[in-house]
Amino acid sequence: MDFIYGKNSVLETLEAHREINKIIIAKGIQGEKINKIIELAKKNNIIFAFETLQKYNDINHQGVIAFVSPIEYADLDEFLAGIPSGKNSSLVILDGIEDPHNFGAIIRTALCAGVSGIIIPAHRSVRVTSVVEKTSAGAVNHIPIIKVNSLVSAVQKLKNSDWWVIATEASADDNYYNIDYANMNFALVMGAEGAGVSKPILKQADFKVKISMMSNFNSLNVSCAFSAIIFESVRQKNEQKH
Amino acid sequence: MDFIYGKNSVLETLEAHREINKIIIAKGIQGEKINKIIELAKKNNIIFAFETLQKYNDINHQGVIAFVSPIEYADLDEFLAGIPSGKNSSLVILDGIEDPHNFGAIIRTALCAGVSGIIIPAHRSVRVTSVVEKTSAGAVNHIPIIKVNSLVSAVQKLKNSDWWVIATEASADDNYYNIDYANMNFALVMGAEGAGVSKPILKQADFKVKISMMSNFNSLNVSCAFSAIIFESVRQKNEQKH
Repeated sequence: MDFIYGKNSVLETLEAHREINKIIIAKGIQGEKINKIIELAKKNNIIFAFETLQKYNDINHQGVIAFVSPIEYADLDEFLAGIPSGKNSSLVILDGIEDPHNFGAIIRTALCAGVSGIIIPAHRSVRVTSVVEKTSAGAVNHIPIIKVNSLVSAVQKLKNSDWWVIATEASADDNYYNIDYANMNFALVMGAEGAGVSKPILKQADFKVKISMMSNFNSLNVSCAFSAIIFESVRQKNEQKH
Repeated sequence: MDFIYGKNSVLETLEAHREINKIIIAKGIQGEKINKIIELAKKNNIIFAFETLQKYNDINHQGVIAFVSPIEYADLDEFLAGIPSGKNSSLVILDGIEDPHNFGAIIRTALCAGVSGIIIPAHRSVRVTSVVEKTSAGAVNHIPIIKVNSLVSAVQKLKNSDWWVIATEASADDNYYNIDYANMNFALVMGAEGAGVSKPILKQADFKVKISMMSNFNSLNVSCAFSAIIFESVRQKNEQKH
């Protein structure tokens, strides 16, 4: 069984009606969000208890922990079958990202930007841990996380299914804002900091894009890089509507 | 004395010629970056020693720690006097941001995006701690951090000195991409997650902007929000050049 922690994470998980086995609230803790958590737990017949949370003191639990079933990963074929045609959807592919804070921040940004799903490889990647759930502020309950055995096969499948694949690469010729995001389904591939997107994926990508740096310091955090690119796609879609 | 940790942080700090009192390297550790650290330490007559780093095991030190003087904060008046006129410079103002990971990520993104400086209040804010240094991947050595006693006075001073102040607010009418960033000096104010930019600053701002969310989940991480906005300003400046 997994656990999630933090007021916002637990609240988001309750509101998303994900199965929760038990909630533990720190003795003596009070506040609006805690009250809301208790109210929702009662309403949904979820067991809750007041205990000391001493043994969880190495994490920033904010006085509340919930035991949950692990999140269910989505299947790529089923996911693709459920995408409405002609809607200019987007996907993110995480290629070798191992830092749970970055993974959580990307999930959160993806949901804010209306991304339809996140593809991760079964190996060489973080899975959705407690830290990821916390960093995602509950966003993980609202966006499909698709686990695939081979990223290369997944990319091939996307290309055969009317999706365009855009990989980020520091040495690319094109700036990310020179892509026309508003008129296609696209999957944006973000690579690990340092190593970047892996060679076989770069080889298959329809577009390679970079973020031009305005200083010699060429080390943008991957979740911040993702945010810059994905919100550029949102900007283009919004501008096109007017 | 402060300490910084992590291979990239220590290397960046050496390369930035910041004063380092001593470097401790974990016994038995090897690798290209460690060799480079040793080489630079020798070249610059910095004491280094091989020890066990056991007592630092609660941090992700990657085998290297450096003891440094605290960073020197910059003064707003001196900073403004050093800004060349007619260059369309930018600044970030952090209003109440307390999370060191967010602060570090913002410093890093700001440097990548060519921002000239970061203003923080002396109170109600993180200072530059070891975690901030680590998260910034050494970027903190390359961009002035300006500490001011009153953000309200600082904003007033900027407005009197040919700077435009842009505050982020979830309920703003304007989208961030509808601002013309390429033809002014601007200071972008980012608020704490939850509370947002404080009322007195909002009142003084020349523009208020939002990031339109594409889902009901309205909770973008502040460093990701900053990245989306600041790279839109970079995009506009680059487009104008062509």
